[in-house]
Amino acid sequence: MSVTVAVDTAGADLGPREVAEGAAIAAARGVRVILFGSAAEIGTVPAGVEVVDAPVSIAKAHDPARAVRATPDASIVQAAKAVAAGDADALVSGGSTGAALAAGLFEIRRAPGIYRPALALPIPVPGAPVTLVDVGANTDARSEHLVQFAYMGAALAQTVLGVARPRVALLSNGEEASKGTEAVVAAHRELAGREGQAGRTLEFIGNVEGHDLTAGVADVVVCDGFTGNIALKILEGTSSMLLGAVRDAAASSPRATLGGLLLRPSLRRLRDEIDPEGPGGAYLLGLRRLGVVPHGRFTRHGFSQAILLAARGVTGDIVGTTHAALEAGGALRRRPA
Amino acid sequence: MSVTVAVDTAGADLGPREVAEGAAIAAARGVRVILFGSAAEIGTVPAGVEVVDAPVSIAKAHDPARAVRATPDASIVQAAKAVAAGDADALVSGGSTGAALAAGLFEIRRAPGIYRPALALPIPVPGAPVTLVDVGANTDARSEHLVQFAYMGAALAQTVLGVARPRVALLSNGEEASKGTEAVVAAHRELAGREGQAGRTLEFIGNVEGHDLTAGVADVVVCDGFTGNIALKILEGTSSMLLGAVRDAAASSPRATLGGLLLRPSLRRLRDEIDPEGPGGAYLLGLRRLGVVPHGRFTRHGFSQAILLAARGVTGDIVGTTHAALEAGGALRRRPA
Repeated sequence: MSVTVAVDTAGADLGPREVAEGAAIAAARGVRVILFGSAAEIGTVPAGVEVVDAPVSIAKAHDPARAVRATPDASIVQAAKAVAAGDADALVSGGSTGAALAAGLFEIRRAPGIYRPALALPIPVPGAPVTLVDVGANTDARSEHLVQFAYMGAALAQTVLGVARPRVALLSNGEEASKGTEAVVAAHRELAGREGQAGRTLEFIGNVEGHDLTAGVADVVVCDGFTGNIALKILEGTSSMLLGAVRDAAASSPRATLGGLLLRPSLRRLRDEIDPEGPGGAYLLGLRRLGVVPHGRFTRHGFSQAILLAARGVTGDIVGTTHAALEAGGALRRRPA
Repeated sequence: MSVTVAVDTAGADLGPREVAEGAAIAAARGVRVILFGSAAEIGTVPAGVEVVDAPVSIAKAHDPARAVRATPDASIVQAAKAVAAGDADALVSGGSTGAALAAGLFEIRRAPGIYRPALALPIPVPGAPVTLVDVGANTDARSEHLVQFAYMGAALAQTVLGVARPRVALLSNGEEASKGTEAVVAAHRELAGREGQAGRTLEFIGNVEGHDLTAGVADVVVCDGFTGNIALKILEGTSSMLLGAVRDAAASSPRATLGGLLLRPSLRRLRDEIDPEGPGGAYLLGLRRLGVVPHGRFTRHGFSQAILLAARGVTGDIVGTTHAALEAGGALRRRPA
């Protein structure tokens, strides 16, 4: 049976039409896509794609939680409702993380035993991909949240990325168990303490520092969403700044210009390899069904990747494996969430 | 009158001799240097350098604060005592941040009105240098600490880097004033609220995100030491990973290899430009006298830069201008510290 993905078209910098073009690419690869957004702006409906006319957007709302409650006809709310009702298997947002999070929480709701949903992003580091959790769903996180993020990230790495026994680390300001915020130190103690249980699904390797994020030492790196958002954007900003500086260096003399021309195809491959559109966005984990949050500035390529990522997550039952990993690790919330 | 810098040789990865070679370079440029460390390991004393034999090192102590109190003859404690007594104008550590911080706090002590010292690092971003405060002295920071860091960083940018009216920003997970941890949101409110006073010494430009760190939008970026340490190490790690990937790209085909050879001098200039040894380390601000903390893995070049950085900071009276900036901004602690 084919997978159905509900896609909100609001929030994309290039407009709903660009999201629709991305949907067409994913549809051509066998995914059933339902677009939620302004039918007028979406225009001609691509083959294999359905459109639900939902012209109201809350992508720019300052208080997404309030906007979700006050605007039941908003495209992201309609899309989330369709997923909650089982009309679609996963939700893909058009780029507004806040609105996607709020709609996911209100409509799809948290999975049993989950404290808080988190955003897990597979970062395309050349030769050493790493999944960072949380990249922005939770500005602060207590130790029990970080512990859950560890299991969520491990389940993702296992199911979608095919890592048999993911090496999971906490991002901190030092490798020693005593280093970090109170929440990080407590999460370290908890994860180290449940070695027996954790061993089944993940290998806790302790704290890693900022430079380890690109060093291939861990498959999953865990932090709160404030730190994760900053970490991700520094990584992306530094990459883009440095590739720009290499480009400038390749224009600094006739000799360098010739060198740059010869090197161009190889550098283009590198740029493609680290392109944030490649992974398709962050998995929103911890809800009863799966969500994927691409970046609002993505082109059709990025949106098609996001939809395919969602479909792969459904096929691999990432929601089920996440729950199983949390249960095996004894990390589910005891009282009903 | 020439500047005297007290330098601890313990904690350097390459050993005390490497620090002594760095001291020799700085001494040749007119700085009086007193080295504290094992005279046997330092070996032949370079011209213009004095040595105080202090063979006890606490650079690897797990609890630096306790080690400083328990080990009055440790090299870093001896060096800090010399600065406190006025025998030297500034302290340079051999690379152990924790020991330098603890010795600075106990011996040199906080300047009047300062809540907490902070580490301010001028980061060599090509074409857009930025000073990051705090890069690791305080794992957590309350809003009043962040406000002081803002003025400290601004004074540094003014005095040492020659920026007339530094643009100061808070590092956060979104540009809106409502984005960030409680401390960041409160610091934003306080800094925005004192525009009149702040206007004299700095321009508060609000929050910036991770990618802005390398985008030249701010002269000073403020955060707690947990976030700052991670931010700095991701920036350094990503730079080194990408330059490695460019090197690999330049070996991927005969054509690329030729291109890489032609481009090599330009890329080497870029690598030198972003070399962490260039700035010489982080300024330790908020004590009664100045400190500079280089990285333990530095070579003699980095240590000479650290000593010269300290000397420039003394000449520019960074301690005095920091106090004046905090006073003008109304950001000094009211009760005696």
